Amino acid sequence: MAARENFEKTLTELQDKMTEMSDLTVTALDKAFIALKTQNIELALEVIEEDTAIDILETDINNFIVWLIAKEQPVARDLRRIVGALKISLEIERIADFAVNIAKATIRIGKVESMLSSTKLEEMKDLAIEMLQKAVKSFLDENMSLAKEVGDLDDKVDDLCDINSKQILNYLSKQPEDMNQLTQLLFINRHLERTADHITNVAESAAYLIKGRQYDLNT
Amino acid sequence: MAARENFEKTLTELQDKMTEMSDLTVTALDKAFIALKTQNIELALEVIEEDTAIDILETDINNFIVWLIAKEQPVARDLRRIVGALKISLEIERIADFAVNIAKATIRIGKVESMLSSTKLEEMKDLAIEMLQKAVKSFLDENMSLAKEVGDLDDKVDDLCDINSKQILNYLSKQPEDMNQLTQLLFINRHLERTADHITNVAESAAYLIKGRQYDLNT
Repeated sequence: MAARENFEKTLTELQDKMTEMSDLTVTALDKAFIALKTQNIELALEVIEEDTAIDILETDINNFIVWLIAKEQPVARDLRRIVGALKISLEIERIADFAVNIAKATIRIGKVESMLSSTKLEEMKDLAIEMLQKAVKSFLDENMSLAKEVGDLDDKVDDLCDINSKQILNYLSKQPEDMNQLTQLLFINRHLERTADHITNVAESAAYLIKGRQYDLNT
Repeated sequence: MAARENFEKTLTELQDKMTEMSDLTVTALDKAFIALKTQNIELALEVIEEDTAIDILETDINNFIVWLIAKEQPVARDLRRIVGALKISLEIERIADFAVNIAKATIRIGKVESMLSSTKLEEMKDLAIEMLQKAVKSFLDENMSLAKEVGDLDDKVDDLCDINSKQILNYLSKQPEDMNQLTQLLFINRHLERTADHITNVAESAAYLIKGRQYDLNT
């Protein structure tokens, strides 16, 4: 096999690992929310346990990249692609940690009447998942318009975060007996905002690869 | 100059940038807490503005590393050191973001009687700064026992986080009129816990460089 062809094949292997990591993280976010919604402690524990697989993938990608750089000694765009993959895998690992935090909050809330439907948290989670899928795709396909879409969606998430924050604090002042659940929902609101910020970093790594310079999509 | 000597000089330059980034972040955390304690909105705004310098340094380190890998085509330990520096600079940038979050919380609290001294938040911040300095030093000096100390300090931070959380929620149930300040202090408690987690990641990157395998210091 020609050297270039071989290198492309190795890159595809790296990208497959990134896609797998991203898919597992989407599943973790979805599962964490189902657990929160249905107050399913078992499912929340599953999210926490399954995070190990994502951590292992991150280590795997890290080692793969060190091996790849040493073996191929890439330059220019190839090198930017590999460094980008390293940074993105770190971001995705952090994003998966937020799914774990949401699962932990679910366990802390316990079995009380859920107030989730009185908030826009689920809408935020759906936007975050859409952002993650678009951000990873923008990197893999080198698609700049997808990267920009992620920046726009992040603005929507920030707006929802403000709305949720005001609403939950309003409930808190009126229903102090629900303090435990409401403070956990406040944390989840923050976790989702941070999740979206980390996803925006993924899109910025994509933009850096495509355009060869830094973009601030989080304005 | 011999090639090796030249490479070592370039590595020193990279390490100086990392030290500068870490020092700026320590200053940001300290300033954010002085602003919180003295309710100095101007100082809080300064922390937010000065974060730009840290972001620029992170980009600078990223570009420097891409250039360094392309130019020197390092392998083995040299490559691990460079990849470690890239990962650590990303972590420090995130840690500095928490200082910004604390500054924003300070602005949201506004001019009310401070309840900070009724919590152990400042103790947590001091531990976080000690952790950051030790974690960066453990990487630069390849000192494994310092990396382990960071893991131990992280346990202390987690304990303080639990104590603070219970205490602040207790105040919240008794003094609902202080809800705004207390929810912000709850967020700050979380920011500091996350700060310590990110610093533990720095120590894990140091351990990876020193021992050549992954360590989980966050147990």
